[in-house]
Amino acid sequence: MSDTPYPFLRNCWYTAGWDYEVIDGKKLARTFLEKPVVIFRGESGQYVALDDRCCHRGAPLSLGRIEGDCLRCMYHGMKYDAAGICIEIPGQDMISAQHRVHSYPIEERGHLLWIWMGDPELADPGLIHDFSYLSDPEWAGLTQQAYLHYDANWLLIVDNLADFSHLAFVHTDTLGGSEDYAFSTEQEVERLEDGFQFVRWDKGSPPPPYHVRACPDAPDKVDRRNEVKMLVPGIFFMETSFAPVGWDPDSGDLEGVRQYKNCQYMTPETRRTTHFFWEYLRNYKQDDPNVSLSLRDGMMAGFMEDKILIEEQQKYLELDEPFQPRGLVADKALSHFRKVWNKKVAEENEKYPREQVEIRNPIL
Amino acid sequence: MSDTPYPFLRNCWYTAGWDYEVIDGKKLARTFLEKPVVIFRGESGQYVALDDRCCHRGAPLSLGRIEGDCLRCMYHGMKYDAAGICIEIPGQDMISAQHRVHSYPIEERGHLLWIWMGDPELADPGLIHDFSYLSDPEWAGLTQQAYLHYDANWLLIVDNLADFSHLAFVHTDTLGGSEDYAFSTEQEVERLEDGFQFVRWDKGSPPPPYHVRACPDAPDKVDRRNEVKMLVPGIFFMETSFAPVGWDPDSGDLEGVRQYKNCQYMTPETRRTTHFFWEYLRNYKQDDPNVSLSLRDGMMAGFMEDKILIEEQQKYLELDEPFQPRGLVADKALSHFRKVWNKKVAEENEKYPREQVEIRNPIL
Amino acid sequence: MSDTPYPFLRNCWYTAGWDYEVIDGKKLARTFLEKPVVIFRGESGQYVALDDRCCHRGAPLSLGRIEGDCLRCMYHGMKYDAAGICIEIPGQDMISAQHRVHSYPIEERGHLLWIWMGDPELADPGLIHDFSYLSDPEWAGLTQQAYLHYDANWLLIVDNLADFSHLAFVHTDTLGGSEDYAFSTEQEVERLEDGFQFVRWDKGSPPPPYHVRACPDAPDKVDRRNEVKMLVPGIFFMETSFAPVGWDPDSGDLEGVRQYKNCQYMTPETRRTTHFFWEYLRNYKQDDPNVSLSLRDGMMAGFMEDKILIEEQQKYLELDEPFQPRGLVADKALSHFRKVWNKKVAEENEKYPREQVEIRNPIL
Repeated sequence: MSDTPYPFLRNCWYTAGWDYEVIDGKKLARTFLEKPVVIFRGESGQYVALDDRCCHRGAPLSLGRIEGDCLRCMYHGMKYDAAGICIEIPGQDMISAQHRVHSYPIEERGHLLWIWMGDPELADPGLIHDFSYLSDPEWAGLTQQAYLHYDANWLLIVDNLADFSHLAFVHTDTLGGSEDYAFSTEQEVERLEDGFQFVRWDKGSPPPPYHVRACPDAPDKVDRRNEVKMLVPGIFFMETSFAPVGWDPDSGDLEGVRQYKNCQYMTPETRRTTHFFWEYLRNYKQDDPNVSLSLRDGMMAGFMEDKILIEEQQKYLELDEPFQPRGLVADKALSHFRKVWNKKVAEENEKYPREQVEIRNPIL
Repeated sequence: MSDTPYPFLRNCWYTAGWDYEVIDGKKLARTFLEKPVVIFRGESGQYVALDDRCCHRGAPLSLGRIEGDCLRCMYHGMKYDAAGICIEIPGQDMISAQHRVHSYPIEERGHLLWIWMGDPELADPGLIHDFSYLSDPEWAGLTQQAYLHYDANWLLIVDNLADFSHLAFVHTDTLGGSEDYAFSTEQEVERLEDGFQFVRWDKGSPPPPYHVRACPDAPDKVDRRNEVKMLVPGIFFMETSFAPVGWDPDSGDLEGVRQYKNCQYMTPETRRTTHFFWEYLRNYKQDDPNVSLSLRDGMMAGFMEDKILIEEQQKYLELDEPFQPRGLVADKALSHFRKVWNKKVAEENEKYPREQVEIRNPIL
Repeated sequence: MSDTPYPFLRNCWYTAGWDYEVIDGKKLARTFLEKPVVIFRGESGQYVALDDRCCHRGAPLSLGRIEGDCLRCMYHGMKYDAAGICIEIPGQDMISAQHRVHSYPIEERGHLLWIWMGDPELADPGLIHDFSYLSDPEWAGLTQQAYLHYDANWLLIVDNLADFSHLAFVHTDTLGGSEDYAFSTEQEVERLEDGFQFVRWDKGSPPPPYHVRACPDAPDKVDRRNEVKMLVPGIFFMETSFAPVGWDPDSGDLEGVRQYKNCQYMTPETRRTTHFFWEYLRNYKQDDPNVSLSLRDGMMAGFMEDKILIEEQQKYLELDEPFQPRGLVADKALSHFRKVWNKKVAEENEKYPREQVEIRNPIL
């Protein structure tokens, strides 16, 4: 895939990490859209994201040393400020304007770090898709916000989340439950300009295993309602209710209803690998650590089922052998998302052509 | 090598596995000629071989579920029959004729599974090179029929088997014996339309170590007769006799003669990897498990000597450095086999041109 | 990088190994400039270096058997003399002039083996950059002469050694000492036709940790003098003195002066990997094995700091992303060396064009 045109949207906010990844002076080396970045928190509390390659000879700044809100390369001692400008070169007085690295806009929202990989001039923090429940004390999360690394293109994960019929087969013993779920198609996909949304009901069915483990007192039959939204560039929100059979969500009656708020974020690391961040929130028994543990383990079991399958799928799609995918009716959401995505990438590449590089590593 | 023209013959039978690999509802995911295939035994007893990539999005069917003689993809639940036709899509009534995967003809002969990777119309079971001794109770085999995976092109293994002088140097302490064996060239290679055959004698020499271990009562000197046949696409049969010195094989006198029947099969997995199946049969002490064990260990020791050498050879031939091979007189058999092979591949590629694929993985 | 023009100088002496690597009949398989070579010591004591690929089918001669000063391929028994000429083919009388492999000139100097990868006619042993201290009993070395394998292009190691300011940051706790070292630029680089040299002083500073560990009686402040020379194709010599503050090296007074002689050799294995040989000699307490151990561990700790950083740098420079290095004043030595190197490679490629190879591995 490395010979395909650059397949990423640059001018949007991507999730970059959880705030706990840069506590205690840690420097986080992480690659986004095939660019290596170092993220740290300066001594003033400011988050800083810089190109991880020192402008001198490409040494990793993530092996460097934080000094105030600056980062010193520990190869020859060049010191960069938070804007990426070199402000000291040991043994040299003159510093040119070219002695600098790119500084990426970075913001924190609800413990989640967001990075802007495109033109910093365009980085409007108002465009961040904040999931406000992440900082809402009414909603309790897992024991630690979660991360998985995928050996797969991020769009395969979007595909996965775009069709919930897979819960019936992939997640029978974890997130899904009965296989009947795949045959009930009471779901209307709404196409959005920057994604899609749908509500999927499963009425009068046994609740799925993960929920029963967290709530042993759950009734035998429930109405399950998933309200799903997926947005460019890989942002997934879901509100889930397990309610008494016959429940009317518009009634405002939450007697006997258990609710969850789930966010999942897919940030491309490379064309074939993805960072996957997620949190799973509840508004009941917020102080019971065993419920947090149970939900974490239950969700993780389900996500690992996806990961195994999707990583195999990635390998199979990369084979040097013909493959012609055949569409299903259930592909409506994923097809729309890919159409939206391809259009946005094409528009951006036309409007902001990418720097052409003849010699990539002139000192090798 | 991935940029060389497609180097495989498609319209012939290849060995695909041993029947024990698909007992108890196992699904065998195995790649042949760079195509991933899933093999299983349906509940009726029928063997089934399908493309392992679901026609929807390429998910592995080998992670699916056997239902009767059908296989259900456990991603979104599409169900395929033994012919590869999709007969159920959960939540969707219409199924198009394109909702199918390729079904490969597969046959069992003497516990060995044979697959036809080309046009199913041409798959005549009469063309299978059955080694009937595999199902002959007179001939006892190893404790389990054997398999090795090679990180090498299959033709390097054919080369190896085409010149028995290597027994003297590679297998001195296992299958070979004295180095004199390489200097005696009493061997007449007969060129066949689809391979070659030869008889190689080694007269009045000590028997090789593996035979002595299996038959501690073997005499100090024997006449060793190997009758060898190699056929396209990588099928090797050998009959070995250890006889009293001066033995006339045409006499019909088997007094004091120990005999073995050996088959070896090389099936290309990819351009640089090979499936290698083999069995080693004897018509003496058929019920003694220790003789089976001794022969298995003795042969395996020898085959590992080949494998180490051939895999190193593969690495050296793949180097980005010039290499011009220099022929030997002993290359007669291997040269003929490569000529036969290249001619057949060229003929097939002309007669049945391979599908040209512009976009290989349109959803990545 | 594999598509860049051939980036090696062939007609010069490279370090190939230490003599202890081929004692007791060992055969050393090692790749230089992307060519696999086997090195051994014949029974007469002669060092022999041959192409490691048998001319027949490319099998590794390093799996062969030493017979006198000859090497026998243990695949089909071809026997090569020290000149690479095949002198026996089992079962075949005629041997053609093409049945041979390349024999590389090889010399030993002070336990170090030197190989000439270019035209043997040009291999003048007088061109070897012998470091005579390696065989001088006045100078004691480590417990064993050292080797490291680098996953990096050799020029990145030259870069590292060309600017000593890195000692301050990379080696603070091992070879360096105070970070002030980087800010003192009392160093005059002298450009040579085949490399560069400089003397770098660090006056009135605490001695570096490795020296204090080896010499616990070292004074608190010393004058440190490094006299450095780097020569094509990657040969580094350094003389280090730790002297009483105010010492005049021209006085000849060595009272209270501790001295070291260090050699480091970088031989390209491939475009992205390097053999790195080194020794560290002292002229005091030559018989104390604990001083040898202390210096070995101290130097190795420092060299591992370089290795970690340089291997990460290699990965970052190989990325498929634009990178434009920005020069520093301190790059004077490394810039000159690369200019010298590129000029020599270009001259050689023009004078001795490299064999063009259309089909690289005709039997795969």
